[in-house]
Amino acid sequence: METATYTEQLTLAERYIKVRKHTEKICAPLQTEDYVVQPVVDVSPPKWHIGHTTWFFETFILKPYFMGYQEYNAEFNYVFNSYYETVGNRVIRTDRGNLSRPTVIDIMRYREYVDDAMNKFLCEEPSEEVKELLVLGFNHEEQHQELLYTDIKYILGHNPLFPAYSHEYHSPKVEKTDEDFIMMDEGIYEIGFNGDGFCFDNELNRHKVYLNAYEISPDLVTNAEYLEFINSGGYHDFRHWHAEGWDWVNTNKVEAPLYWHLIHGEWYNYTYNGLEPVEMKQPVCHISYFEAYAFAAWKGMRLATEFEWEAASAQFGWGKSWEWTESSYLPYPGFAKAPGAIGEYNGKFMVNQKVLRGASEVTSPGHSRATYRNFFQTHLRWQFTGIRLVR
Amino acid sequence: METATYTEQLTLAERYIKVRKHTEKICAPLQTEDYVVQPVVDVSPPKWHIGHTTWFFETFILKPYFMGYQEYNAEFNYVFNSYYETVGNRVIRTDRGNLSRPTVIDIMRYREYVDDAMNKFLCEEPSEEVKELLVLGFNHEEQHQELLYTDIKYILGHNPLFPAYSHEYHSPKVEKTDEDFIMMDEGIYEIGFNGDGFCFDNELNRHKVYLNAYEISPDLVTNAEYLEFINSGGYHDFRHWHAEGWDWVNTNKVEAPLYWHLIHGEWYNYTYNGLEPVEMKQPVCHISYFEAYAFAAWKGMRLATEFEWEAASAQFGWGKSWEWTESSYLPYPGFAKAPGAIGEYNGKFMVNQKVLRGASEVTSPGHSRATYRNFFQTHLRWQFTGIRLVR
Amino acid sequence: METATYTEQLTLAERYIKVRKHTEKICAPLQTEDYVVQPVVDVSPPKWHIGHTTWFFETFILKPYFMGYQEYNAEFNYVFNSYYETVGNRVIRTDRGNLSRPTVIDIMRYREYVDDAMNKFLCEEPSEEVKELLVLGFNHEEQHQELLYTDIKYILGHNPLFPAYSHEYHSPKVEKTDEDFIMMDEGIYEIGFNGDGFCFDNELNRHKVYLNAYEISPDLVTNAEYLEFINSGGYHDFRHWHAEGWDWVNTNKVEAPLYWHLIHGEWYNYTYNGLEPVEMKQPVCHISYFEAYAFAAWKGMRLATEFEWEAASAQFGWGKSWEWTESSYLPYPGFAKAPGAIGEYNGKFMVNQKVLRGASEVTSPGHSRATYRNFFQTHLRWQFTGIRLVR
Amino acid sequence: METATYTEQLTLAERYIKVRKHTEKICAPLQTEDYVVQPVVDVSPPKWHIGHTTWFFETFILKPYFMGYQEYNAEFNYVFNSYYETVGNRVIRTDRGNLSRPTVIDIMRYREYVDDAMNKFLCEEPSEEVKELLVLGFNHEEQHQELLYTDIKYILGHNPLFPAYSHEYHSPKVEKTDEDFIMMDEGIYEIGFNGDGFCFDNELNRHKVYLNAYEISPDLVTNAEYLEFINSGGYHDFRHWHAEGWDWVNTNKVEAPLYWHLIHGEWYNYTYNGLEPVEMKQPVCHISYFEAYAFAAWKGMRLATEFEWEAASAQFGWGKSWEWTESSYLPYPGFAKAPGAIGEYNGKFMVNQKVLRGASEVTSPGHSRATYRNFFQTHLRWQFTGIRLVR
Repeated sequence: METATYTEQLTLAERYIKVRKHTEKICAPLQTEDYVVQPVVDVSPPKWHIGHTTWFFETFILKPYFMGYQEYNAEFNYVFNSYYETVGNRVIRTDRGNLSRPTVIDIMRYREYVDDAMNKFLCEEPSEEVKELLVLGFNHEEQHQELLYTDIKYILGHNPLFPAYSHEYHSPKVEKTDEDFIMMDEGIYEIGFNGDGFCFDNELNRHKVYLNAYEISPDLVTNAEYLEFINSGGYHDFRHWHAEGWDWVNTNKVEAPLYWHLIHGEWYNYTYNGLEPVEMKQPVCHISYFEAYAFAAWKGMRLATEFEWEAASAQFGWGKSWEWTESSYLPYPGFAKAPGAIGEYNGKFMVNQKVLRGASEVTSPGHSRATYRNFFQTHLRWQFTGIRLVR
Repeated sequence: METATYTEQLTLAERYIKVRKHTEKICAPLQTEDYVVQPVVDVSPPKWHIGHTTWFFETFILKPYFMGYQEYNAEFNYVFNSYYETVGNRVIRTDRGNLSRPTVIDIMRYREYVDDAMNKFLCEEPSEEVKELLVLGFNHEEQHQELLYTDIKYILGHNPLFPAYSHEYHSPKVEKTDEDFIMMDEGIYEIGFNGDGFCFDNELNRHKVYLNAYEISPDLVTNAEYLEFINSGGYHDFRHWHAEGWDWVNTNKVEAPLYWHLIHGEWYNYTYNGLEPVEMKQPVCHISYFEAYAFAAWKGMRLATEFEWEAASAQFGWGKSWEWTESSYLPYPGFAKAPGAIGEYNGKFMVNQKVLRGASEVTSPGHSRATYRNFFQTHLRWQFTGIRLVR
Repeated sequence: METATYTEQLTLAERYIKVRKHTEKICAPLQTEDYVVQPVVDVSPPKWHIGHTTWFFETFILKPYFMGYQEYNAEFNYVFNSYYETVGNRVIRTDRGNLSRPTVIDIMRYREYVDDAMNKFLCEEPSEEVKELLVLGFNHEEQHQELLYTDIKYILGHNPLFPAYSHEYHSPKVEKTDEDFIMMDEGIYEIGFNGDGFCFDNELNRHKVYLNAYEISPDLVTNAEYLEFINSGGYHDFRHWHAEGWDWVNTNKVEAPLYWHLIHGEWYNYTYNGLEPVEMKQPVCHISYFEAYAFAAWKGMRLATEFEWEAASAQFGWGKSWEWTESSYLPYPGFAKAPGAIGEYNGKFMVNQKVLRGASEVTSPGHSRATYRNFFQTHLRWQFTGIRLVR
Repeated sequence: METATYTEQLTLAERYIKVRKHTEKICAPLQTEDYVVQPVVDVSPPKWHIGHTTWFFETFILKPYFMGYQEYNAEFNYVFNSYYETVGNRVIRTDRGNLSRPTVIDIMRYREYVDDAMNKFLCEEPSEEVKELLVLGFNHEEQHQELLYTDIKYILGHNPLFPAYSHEYHSPKVEKTDEDFIMMDEGIYEIGFNGDGFCFDNELNRHKVYLNAYEISPDLVTNAEYLEFINSGGYHDFRHWHAEGWDWVNTNKVEAPLYWHLIHGEWYNYTYNGLEPVEMKQPVCHISYFEAYAFAAWKGMRLATEFEWEAASAQFGWGKSWEWTESSYLPYPGFAKAPGAIGEYNGKFMVNQKVLRGASEVTSPGHSRATYRNFFQTHLRWQFTGIRLVR
């Protein structure tokens, strides 16, 4: 069920405006140039996110359902399609950072045009079918809001000047509980979404899973604990690593989490406020699955499966950073793709990725539910990814 | 439990000889040149397999346990180590096909030397610890016997002259049952090894798994059925494929299973007897996980999980080709790595690979058990890999 | 000798301002976003050119020679150094398009700051040593003005929207002379700079060269002539190509000059005014050396050497596009590198590049002299490069 | 003119046998496995050379000119064609080391078959046209004899066991003259072949070249001198290197000539007799053009152009190792390709390569003439390449 507190009382039209404004608010501190670059393939230029989320509403709602709607610019379909093979050609993902046009202002105009049309369209109560697409569109844009945050961090954090995103951004702090591991009994648990609000197709169906007894930490691993791993030579001892992880460490000469810099013997961390000393009591963040696994192995423990995580999630605090699980991203029993382009949303990524559970400091509130499944490839680090141990 | 019929009555010394001779028998039809080449990184030169399996007994049994044993040649450690980081440097895997020395005759001499020492060593009853290593060594060599078969097929099958391996090799034929799908009830199943013979660490521990009801085919998908997929444009319709699989198909211009060739409008298949017309009633083979998944999606069905496969395996025939499952290769609950180099055997590969179940026509008989877990990356095709459908 | 018409009457201070303003004028039609991107490694973002030419005056003149000068920002040294290994670390060339900061406005402020300091510095007559550096700085900036033009064309011409740079830009037109080939006698010719104005070190020393008799075309090859080559299958017949050129054509699937697009059966050309039908009577442009060579081979002729070109250059019109020569870029007899960072200017590129002679429509007037040597790798096409035939 | 001493008195039939036998003699010390591998793309498996030189006579002489000749095996055309695009498909060069078949014995049978046919064919006096092709065939095979030597050295010298090729191979020794540099006057020199024996098309036509005065060393640079360069940090100072050479050094972490190994503080050199201490008085060998250039720059000197080398060559000893020149490999005035496949011999490589002059210890005697032009890419080191200085 969607968190009632902030959506229940809004009409769809109000919610549309709210979601759309929030995207613009995230981008407000940026310079025009920050909207353009793509330092690695996984990061998209902010202006692309702004155009793409707009394209989504135009393509899946206005064009098929709003009689008489005039497409803004047919060429934008080519520029802002992400990976929907069903919907024609698209700029390949590695080329997004090579496009200076359309400019930020052009895209903002496109955004306004589509927002105007959507506002008109939403004056009348839409059909159930459209309502579902609308809610998917809101959630889609909220996912891109999270990506905007992480991509902006990457863009600024890899600039040699290390500019701050905003000095008004305040990263939430987490207190360690210092409580013991939570003991979970062997048995059958129910997994998957069962509310009546929105969820993604990959959270369905709710189904039974048999779990062995396990103990799960109430806390995330801290920077201080992770630094012990570094200082004990963890990055240089193959025994902790998967073979593929060991190759990754050596090929990329990885020595610390992303955004960590050793300056005159002290560890600094690039944050939205610029370079700052690493806060030792906060959860370690921006690590790959390979690193999470190696840390756990070094500790003589392991990561939770996504089922273990979900089964125990009510008993610990979460929501500061996404937590790597040991589970591969696979369909739940009875998973079925939606027909058409919408069906490309999740299913086609269900191979060679790991599930993340929880939510991060930049996740939209509506996505913070215990059944939500995020997923990334094992080497990626630009999301706010952390470690929770199981034994 | 190991298949009693062929091992029970043998002493360890007899079994040692039997295993070792079998490796040599597999290589008997080869020309010297066939032992040397490595056409792709996943294929090792046959002479490397012969040396490596010998090195395994020398390194893990003779050197630590046979008093007074003189190492044959210290440099061979460097040449024949496969991936054991614990045991010193090694020739990187991509370089195996660049080594003309040691020659086949040199390696055969090394093999004789180690066999002589092993025979002496096995005159006396070894300790339990050594017995375990011995049995691991036998199973290790049997795994390499399977790899020898598949690597030889790749080496000869990618030669423009398409030479036969042996005209005495007879591929087993499979009859389709034409029976209906087997219905399996929802409930708890026990998974994992529980006999008292040898098994690999990745088959332990036996544990409970909850399965939803499912129906599983009693037959493997045939070449005829797969050809329908090809002819209906299956390789050119992104909707059946994972995003990563779609990239793989397009980058590599894949149009058919490995070893298939379209010659004057007819499909031929490279076999151990040379090029032959595709046998339409036999199971399709040498396909990647991506292809197995896409075929199932095109059929509106899916692959089995490894648990579904194991739970139903007593009710259908298997053993002609390895069967791709939907399951990622992950540790079972309570999985623990052995200490030292032996601990590198399985655990470090448990990421970004898919489990295969069953056994193929070139699998050693002792490996054909329902709990055996093979695993490969999703794009690989040089093993005898096939498809069983679930709905 | 520098072309007296436009420089003689200017003081160094006036000339400084003139050169600097011209760079800004070239950029005036750009949107902020156009300053940022780097679609291929050979193209630099316009904002980088603006910063780099500023850094040049700051580094080589203000810092060493202007007492009391305060460096604007020490980190800019890292960002705007191009390839001068002598002058500390630098952002690697492939990363220039990943930098959103410093912004265009930041760089313009840096530019103003340095210009102010330079203006003050130039109030007094500088030493001869500084004068030489100043003139080098002017020429350096003029070379970057040409690169700005070509890089801007690449950035806009590879955007799927094909935006015009400016509708006020008018490309000069060339009339074909229709005269016969010019006959040149066998004998000794003098090659290299011998005036008393500025020249680059690679134009020195003037020296004797022995040439066989040759005939050189008074005209550049036209688009119409090149289209014949295309239509006769020139891109698909290996006999016209160098082995390396043939690989390049096939790997990159080259079928026409850069910026040519076949739309509904008609050839279009991206120009500074946007997409326009190819003008058949104008010289073919934006081709690689490989293509120039293949065209000449197809014609049964060849390209000129740089010596043949220079010896005959007074007898034909040139200056519309750079002309590929058959000559490799090598030092003239007695060539000597300047000491220090300035010595890195030309010499270190004298391998695996071809000499271009002439000047293009976007070359600064002061660079249009018969002894000027430009040079590029054989596969590059983003400069205005054309073909003149010899037989 | 070909060196009369060893060819004049032989008939074409005798010479055919002599050349063919010599190839076999070079291979005599090899093990079967040594014939098969291709450790880098530039090195071909010895069995490929043996087949390719045979294919040359079959394709260009027997098939077109010997009435009734039966092709040995049509598929061999595909396997042993090197780069002749005119003559059908071919195994791509990087795949040569992946072919175990045809075996060495198969190829030797093919060789015998072709030799028998050639011997019969040569019983009658061939036409002038065929004579020319025959002499080209001899020279072609002699070039491959040199490549056989260098490829064998690479194959054995990159094996971790460092096996000797033959203990009967005696590398010629060179005495340093300790004489002063030879002074050459400014003026016109004649360059190119002007004898009446065989030469390659790239040595024609003889033509005039104007040279400035220069001084050329009578000796090659020795290992001792090169070691000074290494010890003074030459590989770590960008100032000596071309930009492209500097990239090559750093990407490949080059620290010494190919085949040099620093073992317990002493430099060893892989030779045909196995690993031996570097002989300090012998010429340095197996270096790239980049290294030759950097060494000369470090010395404050330069390499000779190929014209300077040829003009002075009568005044110094040469023939121990090929000498890098500063000249790019370009056609001489009036160069014309032969029609058909033979025309692919030289011309299509005339881009981005440097000329080598002289001859090495493994060059066929008939190729040791002052006008002979060898050529390689600037990064290659597996030939016997050395340095002669000019100032």
